[in-house]
Amino acid sequence: MLKQYLLTPGPTPVPERVLLAMAQPIIHHRMPAFIKIFNEAAEGLKWIFQTTQPVLMLAGSGTLGMEAAVVNTMKKGDKALCVVGGKFGERWRNICKAFGIETISIDVEWGHAVDPQKVKAALDGDDKITAVFSQANESSTGVRHPVEEIAKLTAARTNVINVVDAVSALGAFDLPMDKAGFDVVVTGSQKALMLPPGQAYVALSDKAWARTEKRDLPCFYADLKRERKAQAGGETAYTPAVTLTIGLVEALRMLKEDGLENIFSRHDKLARATRAAAEALGCRLYAPSAPSPTVTSVWGPDGVDTDKIVKHLRNQYGVSITGGQDAAKGKILRIAHLGYFGPFDILTSVTALEMTLTDLGVRITRGAGTAAAEAILASA
Amino acid sequence: MLKQYLLTPGPTPVPERVLLAMAQPIIHHRMPAFIKIFNEAAEGLKWIFQTTQPVLMLAGSGTLGMEAAVVNTMKKGDKALCVVGGKFGERWRNICKAFGIETISIDVEWGHAVDPQKVKAALDGDDKITAVFSQANESSTGVRHPVEEIAKLTAARTNVINVVDAVSALGAFDLPMDKAGFDVVVTGSQKALMLPPGQAYVALSDKAWARTEKRDLPCFYADLKRERKAQAGGETAYTPAVTLTIGLVEALRMLKEDGLENIFSRHDKLARATRAAAEALGCRLYAPSAPSPTVTSVWGPDGVDTDKIVKHLRNQYGVSITGGQDAAKGKILRIAHLGYFGPFDILTSVTALEMTLTDLGVRITRGAGTAAAEAILASA
Repeated sequence: MLKQYLLTPGPTPVPERVLLAMAQPIIHHRMPAFIKIFNEAAEGLKWIFQTTQPVLMLAGSGTLGMEAAVVNTMKKGDKALCVVGGKFGERWRNICKAFGIETISIDVEWGHAVDPQKVKAALDGDDKITAVFSQANESSTGVRHPVEEIAKLTAARTNVINVVDAVSALGAFDLPMDKAGFDVVVTGSQKALMLPPGQAYVALSDKAWARTEKRDLPCFYADLKRERKAQAGGETAYTPAVTLTIGLVEALRMLKEDGLENIFSRHDKLARATRAAAEALGCRLYAPSAPSPTVTSVWGPDGVDTDKIVKHLRNQYGVSITGGQDAAKGKILRIAHLGYFGPFDILTSVTALEMTLTDLGVRITRGAGTAAAEAILASA
Repeated sequence: MLKQYLLTPGPTPVPERVLLAMAQPIIHHRMPAFIKIFNEAAEGLKWIFQTTQPVLMLAGSGTLGMEAAVVNTMKKGDKALCVVGGKFGERWRNICKAFGIETISIDVEWGHAVDPQKVKAALDGDDKITAVFSQANESSTGVRHPVEEIAKLTAARTNVINVVDAVSALGAFDLPMDKAGFDVVVTGSQKALMLPPGQAYVALSDKAWARTEKRDLPCFYADLKRERKAQAGGETAYTPAVTLTIGLVEALRMLKEDGLENIFSRHDKLARATRAAAEALGCRLYAPSAPSPTVTSVWGPDGVDTDKIVKHLRNQYGVSITGGQDAAKGKILRIAHLGYFGPFDILTSVTALEMTLTDLGVRITRGAGTAAAEAILASA
């Protein structure tokens, strides 16, 4: 009986309250009992998105939300400026390409945030660009991009919107949609919202909604205009993910009980503790200049394949963290602090890492990571 | 405390075993524990689809599966022949149109099955048609279409495939994909598979897979070729609906314990009992010539708005059945017997209907429906 600890940046742990809510008998999505639940979820989403716009729920994963952002706001002949500094930046580019949208990329070195000046230069240099696609948090590298700065650049241009993949970000750190001027914000259920995967959430600004009137890319399932109309009445165009919506209401209640300020400061504290612990164990930060509040990426100790560390953690200790993907495969560790995480989840990751590194012959001081984390996590 | 009975054709009741399986702590979709679950689900799906082809799992509702069928197998300039005899037939047409595919419709009177001779005539008359889209079961009207006959017609033509929406059909009555020669079969989680909504399943024949090599319609999230490659390795291209996959394994175990023959005969028996009961209560069958094995549609008693009956059943007795949609709104009742249904679910619908009709002043003989149903449901 190897007790399991899921400490990954998505799916994130689902609270017992939410699991139990979702285990209730199913209800029908076009009947009053569900419509009431749906409307409560919709209101709660506005709160967590910090917007007065409707936040649409789609049955599908975050990638569906990203696709919906592209096909509803881009037109044939438009150009997309994609910030590409990781796997999810690449996804924006790939989705645009799949729908025939020409893309220009700002290739950002993995582990770094985009320089807003480069975005400005790209926009200044090409007035065919109609949207900037980026990540609030690039979870493949553990980088926080300056999406607020990008939003300021696009706000000054009538023909350019900013589109923010906030899948591993929204509800973990402050991304006030209306105040910051984000035009499209996408997130998914299995991150800060503490649910299983399978539901995507998308909100559009007035500027972005205006574009949907002239949509000319083909879409059906991801048609946001149709969804907005249906969801205004408490229903969805097609069958929704009923249990996830029920779970969402419970998760949003928990988040509201905490309050945005506490949620954000908790994530920040856990992130700082994780970084301090990793550095105390000799693991250099992978993204020191723009570290993510939701997932800390660190280089493995010299010469050690980090996939080996991840496997040892999982097989010997039942602790699941993630390694690097694509270009960072085998090179980095990614330790999550996203969603339903508390201090002892961080300490579990840290102590498991201390034991694993020692097991693998890496010279560290046992307890060094723990001590560094505790100093930040302790209440006094 | 009005005890609730969900007796709708989707979502259908979710067995307690499945609800509990899904309430387990979440696991990560790229780790060995989940891959094992995923592979068991994939094998079980082949069994219930009666195919040797991979059955792909998509995070989304049945409509996403339908969209995937269109965008992966149709090309620009192709023509689609759509059998339109209800809301879901219309959906095929609408999806094709959304992606720029020219459609020809065989408009079938609601409550009737398509005449295969009309399909043959349409195919004979236009060699630009490359696919026939239909429903195995049109749940908006409670009609079973002769998809096996359609498959025979397309099998004889190298350039035409048949695409079967089996959302409210597969796993309830016999639709042997390989044997019948279905080219694309789509279903969803919330019907005979006894799960909450949020996962779609799609399988393609070799003839349909060959088409995906030359795909030219834009798609990303619904890209079946990419999914086939990923799912062959026990993963999905994008984050899957993890809890539904876990639930699916449990549901498939239950279905296997029963066996296909028992599953099909149970649905048939419940359908016959429901029809007999409705007729005994003076409700004429809406689709007498091709009644569905999964949902029985009947006309309301003369002059009574069936939406009023549905509301009374729900508000007074906590029993949820469905009325008509679109053209049949207010005119018909739809009583489900799909998925996790037993004799006493039918008797609940029937007795609630007897009480409701009497409450609303319709002259019926109390117990007449029950007696008719019991005669079929009793074991002897």
